[in-house]
Amino acid sequence: MRNHDGGHPMRRDHEERVIAALRDLGPLSRAELAQRVGISRTTMSDITNHLLNRAMIVTYEPSAESESDGPAPGSGPSRRGRPASRLALNPRAGQLLGIDFGHRRVHVVVVDAAHRMVASEIRRYPSDSDWPTRVAEVLELLRQLGRRADVELSGLSGIGVGFPGPFSPRMPTFDSDDHPETTPSEFVRNRLRDHYPVPIMIDNNTRLAGLAEAVWGGAETDHLVYVRLSDGIGGGLVIGGRLVTGADGFAGELGHVSVRLDGPDCRCGKRGCLETIASVPAILARCQELGARVTSLSELRTAVERADPLVDRVLRDAGDALGRVLGTMAVTLNPSEIVVGGEIVQHAPQLLSQAQIMINWELQSMAGSELRLRPASLGDEDGALGAVAALLHTSPLLANYPVPGTPSDDDHRQAEDRTALRQAQDRLS
Amino acid sequence: MRNHDGGHPMRRDHEERVIAALRDLGPLSRAELAQRVGISRTTMSDITNHLLNRAMIVTYEPSAESESDGPAPGSGPSRRGRPASRLALNPRAGQLLGIDFGHRRVHVVVVDAAHRMVASEIRRYPSDSDWPTRVAEVLELLRQLGRRADVELSGLSGIGVGFPGPFSPRMPTFDSDDHPETTPSEFVRNRLRDHYPVPIMIDNNTRLAGLAEAVWGGAETDHLVYVRLSDGIGGGLVIGGRLVTGADGFAGELGHVSVRLDGPDCRCGKRGCLETIASVPAILARCQELGARVTSLSELRTAVERADPLVDRVLRDAGDALGRVLGTMAVTLNPSEIVVGGEIVQHAPQLLSQAQIMINWELQSMAGSELRLRPASLGDEDGALGAVAALLHTSPLLANYPVPGTPSDDDHRQAEDRTALRQAQDRLS
Repeated sequence: MRNHDGGHPMRRDHEERVIAALRDLGPLSRAELAQRVGISRTTMSDITNHLLNRAMIVTYEPSAESESDGPAPGSGPSRRGRPASRLALNPRAGQLLGIDFGHRRVHVVVVDAAHRMVASEIRRYPSDSDWPTRVAEVLELLRQLGRRADVELSGLSGIGVGFPGPFSPRMPTFDSDDHPETTPSEFVRNRLRDHYPVPIMIDNNTRLAGLAEAVWGGAETDHLVYVRLSDGIGGGLVIGGRLVTGADGFAGELGHVSVRLDGPDCRCGKRGCLETIASVPAILARCQELGARVTSLSELRTAVERADPLVDRVLRDAGDALGRVLGTMAVTLNPSEIVVGGEIVQHAPQLLSQAQIMINWELQSMAGSELRLRPASLGDEDGALGAVAALLHTSPLLANYPVPGTPSDDDHRQAEDRTALRQAQDRLS
Repeated sequence: MRNHDGGHPMRRDHEERVIAALRDLGPLSRAELAQRVGISRTTMSDITNHLLNRAMIVTYEPSAESESDGPAPGSGPSRRGRPASRLALNPRAGQLLGIDFGHRRVHVVVVDAAHRMVASEIRRYPSDSDWPTRVAEVLELLRQLGRRADVELSGLSGIGVGFPGPFSPRMPTFDSDDHPETTPSEFVRNRLRDHYPVPIMIDNNTRLAGLAEAVWGGAETDHLVYVRLSDGIGGGLVIGGRLVTGADGFAGELGHVSVRLDGPDCRCGKRGCLETIASVPAILARCQELGARVTSLSELRTAVERADPLVDRVLRDAGDALGRVLGTMAVTLNPSEIVVGGEIVQHAPQLLSQAQIMINWELQSMAGSELRLRPASLGDEDGALGAVAALLHTSPLLANYPVPGTPSDDDHRQAEDRTALRQAQDRLS
């Protein structure tokens, strides 16, 4: 993933430090900031102007009543009549938008600077909708969200977008009236940018769901393998804290590993891919082939509850194939967690228990590895949340974006500010 | 991998900029440096003192005859009688040492700041040598190397060390007289540090060989899968430009993926691991089982030259198993290169051609991927070179360490310096 911030690396780095200082110490004057961050006042002036323009920080004006407390400690000769203006983080800045385009719905989340999910909304469309329709739906949803008091779309820090299917720069193009010869992702990017001129990050939505599981799904981990059993099978790899895209954007396609060379034909052109054995349609089809009347997930659930031995056999067979692929991932990537997503996992516990057998077998060559296999813990918002997580991991500025202070708050806060300032001065002297 | 530099991140970052400025602009005064890098003079003084202490930079004294050229442009009031001292990169600093401990030999390389291999030496020991013996051998070798004019071990920037076998923080301990209850890696680290107080990075040597192939083996790539067929089978993964270690340090163990559940017993406790089918001893054993009298690599080579159909069958079978594992890596990691190392690859081209068939089959689900399968191109020094590459990738300071200028050179160089300074002043004004 590239950094979409576009700024000069050195300036971006300075910006990060300024933000960290304001988070740690509360409101500071430019001179205090320059001293704290260790850069010249001229450079600092550039940095703060840039941050002010982007509304990442605001000028902090102490309220009139607080002036009765007397001058702040350490305020120097520049303090004539009124205090030197100080800078603080903008409490409204830094909301992030995550958009996950599925085949039949778009899921949108808004996450604030404190990594709290402020909003989570779905809008459905027919699965044959074209991209202009899908984008129109999302823009309408955003217009509605923008009216909410807790959503601040005008101060967005960035947008992350999840796409279905393998995401690659070489995705096929499509024609639209307004944007001839463009890829779906380019089309979406351009339309979003028309309304929200902020950094936009795009990736495959299943892969992003894997990142969300690594960051917010349980104990945060830097090494996670994610696979989702659904109409198809997709996956995502988080290695060393980063989502793996691969040389051409195809990484994480666990569903198309050949498990059985004499297996069923796959839509990808091969035979016996994991998807032909462990996807929901593959499992249902195999049940019917063996004579069990199971045509939907809910019928499968009932069959499992009735302990139907044919259905059990099919599920254990699928779990075995899943375990072969995950076991290989365990040996080669040495993750700390393997997460399996998809509704079917809730209905058919055999899938995971059987996969665990193959994984345990493979782990014998890795004495000391503490690998955990678990079902996914996030819901339908996983892709959209992952898009936000990817934004946070992509931009060094956003990655450590702080929980902001509130610049026009009560006296309590002002007292805290002064304490923080005094402590800072102690540390610096 | 962690950064072993140990310095404060902010200072390290400043150091990098100072070094980059000296590389780009030639010798500069402290004031010029502070202006160029955009940090305060106080901070700059700390930075330069630290770099001077570590001999990364030196004080640049213009030679007497160059003074006849008159004062350098832009020199200010501080120039009284003699010029303000300027700083320059130390041309002798920044050599890096790579050490690869094999079972029967240690390979040492010295790489200079311009990424040139200055020295490459081997010292052999019996395969049952203990660690104190191995370290004594390497220290003796280093004493000899230190006498060479082009090797500057007193100004080392760092040492990278490759170890055989899976490398993990949980490696078993061993007793030595001087260092009771320590791991081999801790023992080696302590002994080396006694003689060379520089950052020391340690990793598995096969994994490091993979990194060396990614960096110096051909076209530099950020996405590479490496596997080596030898007495055992090991591997290494480079993803997004970084060597993958995994959650517990086991990543890259391609030799212990189960390929055939009914295959031969493996030393790791499982059956049918790739190592039991495609390692050199496994291939030789299988040839003999089928009736071909092939007991060594050279006999295998002769048999291949004679087109022995039994041997061909064994090799194609091994290549097929290799292709199964590499094909899975291709689909899940989407690398741009897969590299197969080990002497046997030179003798038995079937191994790679058969593996290519499985890889091509797997690639069908990834239209547009341009994956290249190739034999390793580096020789026995690959592990030691990889240790140096890991150092370069680990330390931000070392990673972009510049080709140094020569501070006490001829007039030509002085003229270049002045030109660079003038250009710098133009850029800054």
